[in-house]
Amino acid sequence: MKLTQAQLDHFNEEGWILLENCFSPEEVAVLNAEGEKIYAEDREEVWRETSGAPRTAFAAHTYNEAFRRLGRHPRLIEPVMQLLDGQVYMHQYKVNAKAAFDGEVWQWHQDYGTWARDDAMPAPRAMNIAVFLDAVTAANGPLIFIPRSHKQGVFEAGHDLETTSYPLWTLDRASVTRLAEAGGLVAPTGPAGSVLMFHCNLVHASPPNISPFGRTIVYLSLCHVDNHIRQFKRAEWIAHRDFTPIACLPDDCLAELTAAAE
Amino acid sequence: MKLTQAQLDHFNEEGWILLENCFSPEEVAVLNAEGEKIYAEDREEVWRETSGAPRTAFAAHTYNEAFRRLGRHPRLIEPVMQLLDGQVYMHQYKVNAKAAFDGEVWQWHQDYGTWARDDAMPAPRAMNIAVFLDAVTAANGPLIFIPRSHKQGVFEAGHDLETTSYPLWTLDRASVTRLAEAGGLVAPTGPAGSVLMFHCNLVHASPPNISPFGRTIVYLSLCHVDNHIRQFKRAEWIAHRDFTPIACLPDDCLAELTAAAE
Repeated sequence: MKLTQAQLDHFNEEGWILLENCFSPEEVAVLNAEGEKIYAEDREEVWRETSGAPRTAFAAHTYNEAFRRLGRHPRLIEPVMQLLDGQVYMHQYKVNAKAAFDGEVWQWHQDYGTWARDDAMPAPRAMNIAVFLDAVTAANGPLIFIPRSHKQGVFEAGHDLETTSYPLWTLDRASVTRLAEAGGLVAPTGPAGSVLMFHCNLVHASPPNISPFGRTIVYLSLCHVDNHIRQFKRAEWIAHRDFTPIACLPDDCLAELTAAAE
Repeated sequence: MKLTQAQLDHFNEEGWILLENCFSPEEVAVLNAEGEKIYAEDREEVWRETSGAPRTAFAAHTYNEAFRRLGRHPRLIEPVMQLLDGQVYMHQYKVNAKAAFDGEVWQWHQDYGTWARDDAMPAPRAMNIAVFLDAVTAANGPLIFIPRSHKQGVFEAGHDLETTSYPLWTLDRASVTRLAEAGGLVAPTGPAGSVLMFHCNLVHASPPNISPFGRTIVYLSLCHVDNHIRQFKRAEWIAHRDFTPIACLPDDCLAELTAAAE
């Protein structure tokens, strides 16, 4: 699994790239079934919306076999090693539910803003992968990016502790407006099994999910091993401290579980 | 301006139809400029979000020349006369702002549910036209329809007086889920100047606008003259009582104002 030069150029210029149908419906079904089990558990890694609906499950790769395999999948890790030019480790791993009706907003932010401020990650030599476990559409709270906003470093941000149950360093409205007037807005949508890669300084947000269907996305945040975090203020299951380079599993590592489930 | 048989069939089967680029950028610019003026006015027809941002301006066709002309525009009225099979009057007229950052949700509802309950409109022989004054995208709170949900009459609804500043008869979650499992969801998007026509019983909603750009849509609710409302509980500027058939103006009625503004 290698990205083409055109894909690399798009990522570097726009800050993101969408790969449709990276995973088969069967592979997605395994992950969805395991995600449901995790959300039903009462554990500290599972955060809930104000309503009680699941919002995010942290570090699922450390306590669930299917998500462990996804976190070492060559279709995800190899392109990231290409983009970050070297070996990578898992900085953060989230299964975000965006529950039907109750899934709340994520305000405008840069992920690296949080990693720099909270975790003392030295440089934005890190990135995100979003694996769609449901179709992402205009109707169910898609990610909204401001293209090219990743090229200007870390913006000023305020620590938003009120909007939702999850604390987030968010940009002010004037900055968001200025950036969007320059770069526009894009909401990459696609079928379940698609993969969206984006730069850790790309400014993004997502609206609430008012639809009657859940919209689960797995987020892998990967960091070059040389660029590991220096400060351990947040829980280990939020900002990981195992900087071992990820060794990929075979391409059929998830398909194997499909077969086992049949 | 006549709809084709394929367009009529799509409307009858799916409950909606999108006509892209019905109005030119110049015509749209006139309406946007007039809309800004209206929102700046302190009048009872202009409702605001909890934040103070404009949410909707009622009856703009009765106090603004550009919106008066839009309300008698042949590109809108002629297709509706075709769909409703006869002469029509203006039941309601709204300019909805969905302001940048602050534009709030419209929960799942049927418009005819309100017209039947509040205004005693005899039958669903009425419909809506949405004229996009901005591009409507996945990023700025598009309308979300449940296709084919207009074929089952009026559903039970509760009077939601809490979610936003505007009271609305809304469907319960179980009904929305059941209908969407059958019909799916669709969020018709398109450039400014596009026109979206939809049946008054089509179940729809729209998410908040978290983007830094406003998203104004004009809603004309048109009713067959024989089907006029029988109960006058709501203000005249919300549910109109002038049942005179609309006489269309010439096709260049808005373009004239463009020329005048230059």
